[in-house]
Amino acid sequence: MALVVQKYGGSSVESAERIKKVAERIVRTRKEGHDVVVVVSAMGDTTDELTDLAEQVSTGAPPPREMDMLLTAGERISNALVAMAIHSLGAEARSFTGSQAGMLTTNKHGDARIVEVNPHRLRSALAEGQIVLVAGFQGMNEDSKDITTLGRGGSDTTAVALAAALDADVCEIYTDVDGIFSADPRIAPKARHLETVTYEEMLELAACGAKVLHLRAVEYARRYNVPLRVRSSYNEKPGTLVAGSIEEIPLENPIITGVAHDRSEGKITVTGVPDTPGMAARIFRVVADAEINIDMVLQNISNASDKKTDITFTLPRSDGPAAVAALEKSKEQIGYAELIYDNEVGKVSLVGAGMRNHPGVTAKFCEALSDAGINIETMNTSEIRISVICKSDQLDEAVRALHAAFELDSEEEAVVAAGTGR
Amino acid sequence: MALVVQKYGGSSVESAERIKKVAERIVRTRKEGHDVVVVVSAMGDTTDELTDLAEQVSTGAPPPREMDMLLTAGERISNALVAMAIHSLGAEARSFTGSQAGMLTTNKHGDARIVEVNPHRLRSALAEGQIVLVAGFQGMNEDSKDITTLGRGGSDTTAVALAAALDADVCEIYTDVDGIFSADPRIAPKARHLETVTYEEMLELAACGAKVLHLRAVEYARRYNVPLRVRSSYNEKPGTLVAGSIEEIPLENPIITGVAHDRSEGKITVTGVPDTPGMAARIFRVVADAEINIDMVLQNISNASDKKTDITFTLPRSDGPAAVAALEKSKEQIGYAELIYDNEVGKVSLVGAGMRNHPGVTAKFCEALSDAGINIETMNTSEIRISVICKSDQLDEAVRALHAAFELDSEEEAVVAAGTGR
Repeated sequence: MALVVQKYGGSSVESAERIKKVAERIVRTRKEGHDVVVVVSAMGDTTDELTDLAEQVSTGAPPPREMDMLLTAGERISNALVAMAIHSLGAEARSFTGSQAGMLTTNKHGDARIVEVNPHRLRSALAEGQIVLVAGFQGMNEDSKDITTLGRGGSDTTAVALAAALDADVCEIYTDVDGIFSADPRIAPKARHLETVTYEEMLELAACGAKVLHLRAVEYARRYNVPLRVRSSYNEKPGTLVAGSIEEIPLENPIITGVAHDRSEGKITVTGVPDTPGMAARIFRVVADAEINIDMVLQNISNASDKKTDITFTLPRSDGPAAVAALEKSKEQIGYAELIYDNEVGKVSLVGAGMRNHPGVTAKFCEALSDAGINIETMNTSEIRISVICKSDQLDEAVRALHAAFELDSEEEAVVAAGTGR
Repeated sequence: MALVVQKYGGSSVESAERIKKVAERIVRTRKEGHDVVVVVSAMGDTTDELTDLAEQVSTGAPPPREMDMLLTAGERISNALVAMAIHSLGAEARSFTGSQAGMLTTNKHGDARIVEVNPHRLRSALAEGQIVLVAGFQGMNEDSKDITTLGRGGSDTTAVALAAALDADVCEIYTDVDGIFSADPRIAPKARHLETVTYEEMLELAACGAKVLHLRAVEYARRYNVPLRVRSSYNEKPGTLVAGSIEEIPLENPIITGVAHDRSEGKITVTGVPDTPGMAARIFRVVADAEINIDMVLQNISNASDKKTDITFTLPRSDGPAAVAALEKSKEQIGYAELIYDNEVGKVSLVGAGMRNHPGVTAKFCEALSDAGINIETMNTSEIRISVICKSDQLDEAVRALHAAFELDSEEEAVVAAGTGR
C-alpha cells in the first residue's frame, strides 16, 4: 500500500464526462489499496471565462488580490465536482481549498511561492480512509491570510509540494500526451518514448522548450526527491518516470536523452560597443532594470582596429520590444553603434547526461547541423546540454537532423552508441 | 458618518453591466462619508448552473459537504468582480469569503445556522478606509472548519448578521422591487407603498407569503434590533424601513398594514375520527414524524350521534403527498374514515398592528369576503393577523376585497379609519 498523489490538468476535467472518467481512475487506484491525494486544475476554459469577466468589469488591470479570489473559485468547482463523481462510484472523498490543505505561500498575488505545507487536515482525512482532493494552483499567504495563486505551472507545483510534504511514493502528472519523448513527435515522427529521465535532464528539457512539465515543478521534485510520473489521462500507458540523478545513470544508457526546441525567444545584437571592461555589465543592467531575463549571451571577439565589439543575447520574444526600448533610451549612456532585433530565431537543444563523459558530442552536433545546411548563430552549453540559435524557419529541420545524427530514432543503436565513445 | 451594510441579490449582479451599476452605488455611499460593508449573492443563474453540473456528475444526491464547497464558489466570483469594478471607479475594496469574515455556523451543510460572527478582519479593513465585501450565504462550521451554506434567504441573513455584529446603523436589502406594499401590486393595482413596517408586522407578512424579505432575516433583525431598509437597486427611491415594535406605533397609524397571500399550501381533512382525547395528537405525531410542518388546524365540532369528528389542517403543498402517504400507512392505528387532500386552496392574510386595540376587524374581514362571495374554509388568527383558507381560484378576488374593505387603497382614509374604532 502506497501513498499516490495524482494531478489532473484542465483538459482532463473539461466536461462532466471527463470528470467521471477521472473519478473512475482515482477510485481504481484507491481500490488497489493505495492512499490517494488528488490535485485538480480548473475545468477546461473556466480560468479564461473568469478572466474575461474580470476584464469586462475593470478599466485597467484588476487588483491582484481580487484576481486571485476570483480565479481560485475555478479549482474549488472542479474539485467539488470530482468529489461528487467519486461519491457516485461508492467511494468516499473530501475536497479541500489550498488554505484548508495548509498551503502557505509568499504574499505576491498571481505568482506566489510555496513557503510551507501543513497538511494535517489531509492526513486525518486519509487516516479515515478518505480520498483527498486539493484545489491546485492556490494557497494562503502567511501575513494577511489572503488567498494567493501560484502562477504558471501552479497545479503541478501544488501536487509535487503535497507529495513532498506527505512523503508520497509517487506524484503522477496526468496530461493529454503519453509522457516525455526524445523530441516533439509532431516535428520528429521517429521520436522515441522515454521510460525514465533524470531530474537534471528534465530540467534542461523543460528549460529548453519541452512543455509537458513545468520547470518549477521539476525543480521542486528534484529538491525533495519526489518521483514524478508523467502519463496520459486518456489511456493506461505507464508514461515516463522522472527520477534519479545523472550520477546514478548506468553507462549502458544512451549518451543523448533528447532534442528540445523553443520558438519563444528573440535575439538582440548591440553593435559597435567600446571593448572596455564593464561594458557588457552596463548593457545587461539596463535590461535587468526593465525586469527582463536574458537567456543566451555571445560577445564577439573585438575588432582589433577600432577596439569595438558586438554583444548578442536572447530573451523571451514577449519581452523584446521592452528591451529594445530600454536600450534605445540609454543609447548615449552606453555608447553603442546600432541595435538589431531579430524575432525570426529558434533555439534547438540536445540534452543527455551521457555527454559529460563522451567527448566529441559538440563536434558531432555542429557537423549534423552544417550537413543539414543550418547556420549556427549562437551557441551555449551546460554539462549535459548543447543549445544553439538558428533561423526559425530552419528549426524543425535542425530538430530532425540532430535526432537522426544521434540515432535517437532507434533505441538499440542508441544504447550501442553509448559505448563507442564519440 | 454611519456604518451601512448593503446586500445585493443575484439579479442585481447578473451581468458585468449590472455589477458596474452596483459598484457605482456602493462608491457613492462611500463618498457620502459612510463606512460600507457589502454582501453580494452569486451572479444571476450561477447557482443553477453549478447545480446542473453537480447533477451531471452525480448519481443520486451529491454529498452536502461538497455541494457547499461547489455553490460557495458562486459568491466568491461575484464578490471579487464587484471589488474589481469598485477599484476601477477609484475606490478601494477588499472581498472576504464567509470564513474569512468570521461567519461561524452549525454543521448542517446546505442549511447551517449562524452561531457566531467574528468580523475582526472586516473591522481592520474598514479602519483602513476600505470598502468591505463579504460573500453571502456561506460560513464555516466550528467543529471541522468545513465550508457551509445557510440555505434559503442565506445572503439576507448574512447581511443582517454582519449589521448586528458590526453594530451598523442600517442594513439595506437591494432587490428588484421598490419595497413593501400593502398588497401584491400585480393582484391589487391600488396597493400602497409602505414607508415603514414594524418587525412583528413584517414577520407576519413574510410568514403569510410576502416574498420580498426572508422570514429568517427578519427574525434575526428583530432579535438584534437591526433597522432594515428594503429598496430597489434599479432606482433611487427610499424603499421601506422595517424597524420598531408594534408597542411604539402611534394611534394615528392605520389599523391595517397590508394583505398577504400564499399559494403554496395544501389542505388535508381527516374525516370520521373518534372524538376521544389525544386523537388529534396521534394524527399530528404521524405527520411530524414525516418531518412535515403544519400551518393551520381546524377541528370541527363533534357529531353528537356517532361521536365522530373531522380534523382539517394545512401544510406546504410540496409536502402534501408525503403527509397523505404517512397518514394512509397508519389508517388502522388512527382509525379514521376518510382522507381528503385538496391543493386547490389559497391563504389570504390581513396584517396590522392596529387591529389589537380595534374590535370588529374580524367581523369586517368576514363580511368583506362574504360580500365578495368567497367562502371561508378555515380561519386562524394572531394578535395582529387574520388568515383564512379559501378556494385558490378566489384568492386574488379575496385580496382585492380585503384591500378595498379596509381602505388600504387610499392612505388618508386609512389614517382616518384608525380613529373610528370599528
